[in-house]
Amino acid sequence: MSLLAVEWDDAAADGHGALTLLDQTVLPERTEHLVVRTVDELVDAIVALAVRGAPALGVAGAMGVVVAMDQAEREGWDAARLEAEVDRVRHARPTAVNLAWGVDRVRPLVARGRDAVLAAAREVAAEDEAANHELSRLGADWLLARVGRPRLRVLTHCNAGALATSAWGTALGVVRELHARDALELVVADETRPLLQGSRLTAYELAEEGIPHVVQVDSAAASTILRGLVDCAVVGADRIAANGDVANKVGTLGVGLACREAGIPLLVAAPWSTVDLSMPDGTGIEIEERPGEEVTELAGRRTAPMGSRGLNPAFDVTPARFVAAVATERGVVEPAAGAGPDRLVDQI
Amino acid sequence: MSLLAVEWDDAAADGHGALTLLDQTVLPERTEHLVVRTVDELVDAIVALAVRGAPALGVAGAMGVVVAMDQAEREGWDAARLEAEVDRVRHARPTAVNLAWGVDRVRPLVARGRDAVLAAAREVAAEDEAANHELSRLGADWLLARVGRPRLRVLTHCNAGALATSAWGTALGVVRELHARDALELVVADETRPLLQGSRLTAYELAEEGIPHVVQVDSAAASTILRGLVDCAVVGADRIAANGDVANKVGTLGVGLACREAGIPLLVAAPWSTVDLSMPDGTGIEIEERPGEEVTELAGRRTAPMGSRGLNPAFDVTPARFVAAVATERGVVEPAAGAGPDRLVDQI
Repeated sequence: MSLLAVEWDDAAADGHGALTLLDQTVLPERTEHLVVRTVDELVDAIVALAVRGAPALGVAGAMGVVVAMDQAEREGWDAARLEAEVDRVRHARPTAVNLAWGVDRVRPLVARGRDAVLAAAREVAAEDEAANHELSRLGADWLLARVGRPRLRVLTHCNAGALATSAWGTALGVVRELHARDALELVVADETRPLLQGSRLTAYELAEEGIPHVVQVDSAAASTILRGLVDCAVVGADRIAANGDVANKVGTLGVGLACREAGIPLLVAAPWSTVDLSMPDGTGIEIEERPGEEVTELAGRRTAPMGSRGLNPAFDVTPARFVAAVATERGVVEPAAGAGPDRLVDQI
Repeated sequence: MSLLAVEWDDAAADGHGALTLLDQTVLPERTEHLVVRTVDELVDAIVALAVRGAPALGVAGAMGVVVAMDQAEREGWDAARLEAEVDRVRHARPTAVNLAWGVDRVRPLVARGRDAVLAAAREVAAEDEAANHELSRLGADWLLARVGRPRLRVLTHCNAGALATSAWGTALGVVRELHARDALELVVADETRPLLQGSRLTAYELAEEGIPHVVQVDSAAASTILRGLVDCAVVGADRIAANGDVANKVGTLGVGLACREAGIPLLVAAPWSTVDLSMPDGTGIEIEERPGEEVTELAGRRTAPMGSRGLNPAFDVTPARFVAAVATERGVVEPAAGAGPDRLVDQI
């Protein structure tokens, strides 16, 4: 059974082929796949976070255009209807730039037909995987040069692993690279409330590969960092502005503040598809507000009293001055030293 | 049915009288009381956090001496056995100074008999309640003078309310005082993983009294503060060093960092019994490590994979430079400006 987050399975749907998603709302307890054949099913899966993680959303967006085209064929949509349905996929969630980017990468090929679009979507996935390997190498190089220890203790937040991407991962890609070099001592993973991507998904990936780790509550990040229990923090990103301001899972900002206070680096590991040069800085990044019930419930049970509302911003923006480095497949920049990813534009 | 955290009920145990504790492990879902007649029962309740909150532990410690004396009478303990059992109560949990302080307040009266000790323990509770009202008034005065707004938006962490004390509360006492003055706009309560004292206990207290509030995940504290959604943070404390370093529920340090970055005040509201002048600063404060399962489980269900361990420091230490003010019944000091609670020693 495939453990890829997002995949096009030619054998699914009686050989017609369909988008298959590993349902991340039920991991690690259950390993189940969703077979997605309609735009409704895809949008629902995206909104419910059955598929999540910026790069994975890029692949889901690209393959979502194929889903829409196949549905258009079955149901007889005209071009205007197809366009509107593709837009629904493109706008399913607002903060991660990769979702729209993935759709936009393949959309120009619609006129060439469904198979051309599917080939292009598979290319998006392959490029993402290759980018992850490259940025992981560059990120690991940068960390080891920066931290004067042979084996690193790394704090992570959320899940920026294989499950958040086409494969390999970004932040966890850096962790895997360090582990492969025997340069990793321990991962301290923030559990990442409300949806626990850290304790359910990151810990799952690390446990599967025998990578030593512990899980902590998000509240412990500041003291873990300031007590000197980790050497660095490595996270992914949902959108990076030209100056290096970073939108990522809520809680990243607190990690950045503590790293700055402790004098240890915060490394943001993300593919170039996460950089949004149309944003000069982070002030324009839309922060998705999700249902309050995700906060006032836990594992399906109500924790707060009935009548207590939840405040649920899903992301926060970490200013460039707290971001020691951004590692992309195009190279590494140091926003805290004044160099945002716009410096990498010439590198192609 | 009494909603006091800790109470001596003369009618309990067939009129013999017993310590009764509101079981805070099951709030807000269930309102149940534990009737405590043995040292084992009291220590278990303290370790399990059926009773928690530094000032409440002070009262429980004082009344715990009576529990031990009554048990000594029933079971025929000699003086050495009684002393050892009282020590078990005194050392049930290490971080909050009030527990040992409460035991020590009444212990000298043991020779005068059980009724004298019970009267002294009731005095500890009455003094705590009076102290809470006074420090709440002083804390509210300080905040309103410091923040140039008529109605405040307040961030809280953990539960420093009536449930954490004999009555009224410390941080929530300040909130109640502001509310009574029509000077409170909203409370944003950190849910406070792993045990959710914020979403289960603080939200419960605020909902009961119709005080407007929302609950957020702990990860959201930094962005809520830096987005300007609150005017201040108000927390309790488990132990305050002479210089104003503060040990409190893990996550407080992150709140302090964000407040400092945003230029808003962090007010620590705590009775004088929480100050430990034998500690010049916070480096000597013992941080209780609790079982990892509290992290890897949620509402009794496992969240992380089997084999993933939890890291669970229950407290952190916020350095004095991040503490804008400490409000006690003896007065308010400003550690960030160089004045720790040792400045209040002359005020009695």
